[in-house]
Amino acid sequence: MPVFLNAHDADFENAFAALLGAKREDSPDVDHIVAGIIADVRKRGDTALIELTEKFDRLALTPETLRFSTEEIATLVAQVPDNERAALELSAARIQDYHARQMPSDETWTDDTGAMLGWRWSPVSAAGLYVPGGLASYPSSVLMNAIPAKVAGVERLAIAVPTPDGQANPLVLLAAQLSGVDEVYRIGGAQAIAALAYGTETIAPVDKITGPGNAFVAAAKRRVFGKVGIDMIAGPSEILVIADASQNPDWIALDMLSQAEHDESAQSILITNDAGMAHAVSAAIDKHLQTLERRKIAGASWRNFGAVIIVPDLDRAAELSNRIAPEHLELCVEDPDALSQKITHAGAIFLGAWTPEAIGDYVGGPNHVLPTARSARFSSGLSVMDFVKRTTLAKMTPEALRTIGPTAETLAISESLEAHGLSVRARLDHLND
Amino acid sequence: MPVFLNAHDADFENAFAALLGAKREDSPDVDHIVAGIIADVRKRGDTALIELTEKFDRLALTPETLRFSTEEIATLVAQVPDNERAALELSAARIQDYHARQMPSDETWTDDTGAMLGWRWSPVSAAGLYVPGGLASYPSSVLMNAIPAKVAGVERLAIAVPTPDGQANPLVLLAAQLSGVDEVYRIGGAQAIAALAYGTETIAPVDKITGPGNAFVAAAKRRVFGKVGIDMIAGPSEILVIADASQNPDWIALDMLSQAEHDESAQSILITNDAGMAHAVSAAIDKHLQTLERRKIAGASWRNFGAVIIVPDLDRAAELSNRIAPEHLELCVEDPDALSQKITHAGAIFLGAWTPEAIGDYVGGPNHVLPTARSARFSSGLSVMDFVKRTTLAKMTPEALRTIGPTAETLAISESLEAHGLSVRARLDHLND
Repeated sequence: MPVFLNAHDADFENAFAALLGAKREDSPDVDHIVAGIIADVRKRGDTALIELTEKFDRLALTPETLRFSTEEIATLVAQVPDNERAALELSAARIQDYHARQMPSDETWTDDTGAMLGWRWSPVSAAGLYVPGGLASYPSSVLMNAIPAKVAGVERLAIAVPTPDGQANPLVLLAAQLSGVDEVYRIGGAQAIAALAYGTETIAPVDKITGPGNAFVAAAKRRVFGKVGIDMIAGPSEILVIADASQNPDWIALDMLSQAEHDESAQSILITNDAGMAHAVSAAIDKHLQTLERRKIAGASWRNFGAVIIVPDLDRAAELSNRIAPEHLELCVEDPDALSQKITHAGAIFLGAWTPEAIGDYVGGPNHVLPTARSARFSSGLSVMDFVKRTTLAKMTPEALRTIGPTAETLAISESLEAHGLSVRARLDHLND
Repeated sequence: MPVFLNAHDADFENAFAALLGAKREDSPDVDHIVAGIIADVRKRGDTALIELTEKFDRLALTPETLRFSTEEIATLVAQVPDNERAALELSAARIQDYHARQMPSDETWTDDTGAMLGWRWSPVSAAGLYVPGGLASYPSSVLMNAIPAKVAGVERLAIAVPTPDGQANPLVLLAAQLSGVDEVYRIGGAQAIAALAYGTETIAPVDKITGPGNAFVAAAKRRVFGKVGIDMIAGPSEILVIADASQNPDWIALDMLSQAEHDESAQSILITNDAGMAHAVSAAIDKHLQTLERRKIAGASWRNFGAVIIVPDLDRAAELSNRIAPEHLELCVEDPDALSQKITHAGAIFLGAWTPEAIGDYVGGPNHVLPTARSARFSSGLSVMDFVKRTTLAKMTPEALRTIGPTAETLAISESLEAHGLSVRARLDHLND
């Protein structure tokens, strides 16, 4: 059964701490297997990649068929029904508009010594995007990962998507096409991550890898980190809804179930200042769990990790929410803007009754790749910033060096770094000659 | 001997690839030891921390003396000579000015459906900064890590600095004071990282840990990543100087040695379109290596990892530089601004003859914590951005939901996520009633 807590109860603090600390996922330790797969791909390249794909995906490939051809993509994409194509197109356009506003600016200025200072942003040259196969093959995730990369100016964007038994998802390929992806490879697992990071005869290496995946993919991303950049390693997803008495409990129940249906490890939490709402939402969840297609998954998530917390007022709700630092936060209250001002840690906020979290998953515009497992305390969702990097700039004049050079020399000497000091002193001596 | 390459030579491409791929550091595998230390601190808290500090730093502490008192800090800081204090103050002020310009802006806007979209930045609540003890205890690094955190608005900033045999560095404490650090603990190694990440009875946990450290500290940071955020794991440092015939070879030699003196694994590379310059710089390096205080370290770095590359022109120099993606790049050429435009991957660029890299280490303003080991291809130096995180915002109106809700529903159905679709449909049905 989900946890029911009341902030008035004497043992609330302990129970809340237990909720915060609960471990929702035991990832199998596959690091040893993954290390072997990466070493194999580094050593034998395409040959290893092809053997592993035959073994895991029951699919025989050649160096020529590792990559989807333009014709294959066109044929598959043509199967997508018009309404789904139109939906993907609108989503892509809105995600593009939102992310285009994230491009950071270059800055340069001259300070009072005459020194020019500043920085410049430039895109990662090549990025790889992992897309899971099978059930978790979500075209929306392709848009959410690929569009920020292309907005950032990434020149070469490659996708790795496994096609078990040769089954490809036409919507994934359409999403890739709409996002401007340059190359799509039918490879998966740790071997795909190894190929993207180190390259093979057929696949050129990339500089950054993003995208979700299973335990093997996650372990492989951890291992290649440093050789390439990676995005965060996502944990199980969560939603927190703060609701007051003004809300429709059935809508909130569906919002919470839309998180729970993702995964048995997902977590849905309701915080409300109205005991009646707490019970009405809980009853509505039970009702929908009788008929929902994914009721087995959603039911397990709700029973094992669901929680309903009654608080005296919305200030307390905001305080508890900040301690949870949820991935998704819905503010289903009369004045969501006011409550939003009190939120310091959350991946994404959905304000008001008309903004179900599902809007954010698909078409709102903001990214749906968000910090899980309380990491919104220190990290952000995926964005254009993940595909650019900053080069700082400094240009001294003789006058600027005369002004600040002696300071560098003093500190270099205090840190026993003589050559640092001499490199400044040689120039200062020249100026004084 | 350092490597001498000429881009005209037939086997240049192979030799350059070997230079790019050369492994400069073999970190000892201390992960097993570190795992035990972290588990011990998590289990036994202060008791473990105190035992480990006695063992590794030969220093007996109590829960009351883990932290430097205000009086102790005042006494130590009073020992700093006036010229060093003035130097640290000027550095701190300039780093503060530069980083204040990095604060990102909140944005909100209303799109054509009437939906409000945007994002908001907020600081990490609590950060921990590791400062190595002994030889590598650099007050400049305290400024470079602590000031961006405080500019970002981090409320609680704690430093961990080991004090072997009770020896504290007054300059480190002054740098902490000037940066607005809130707490300084005399602890080090993996046990300090564990205490910052998980907390003990005396030390409250933080949300993000930055700062350099030895192999034990690096392994501990990798292990606590996820529980807290961490900065990059720095590898050995490197400098690349691109020089034309117009330059003073002695200055360039000193700049290259100022990298080499850091560490035997450091790397200094010269790329020049002038063979005379190549030989003059090399000769000047040999001359300084006879007298330099740290000639043993700098000499080993130069012999084992130094390189001089002759190219036909500066375009080729830029192209090779981009493949190296150096941490520090000096453009010692007649028109550094023009050459800078061709640089796509570098941590920091120092433009022109009057900007030795040492200026950037101390007092220029930009951060000296920069991406090493070719990671400037996909990552940036430390900045205010490392201490803030973004919360995305979305607020639909009934009209906005009517416009884009059906798209979310279509995609939810295509991804077999029924509750996602129902959460939108329930609201749309209400609007249509």
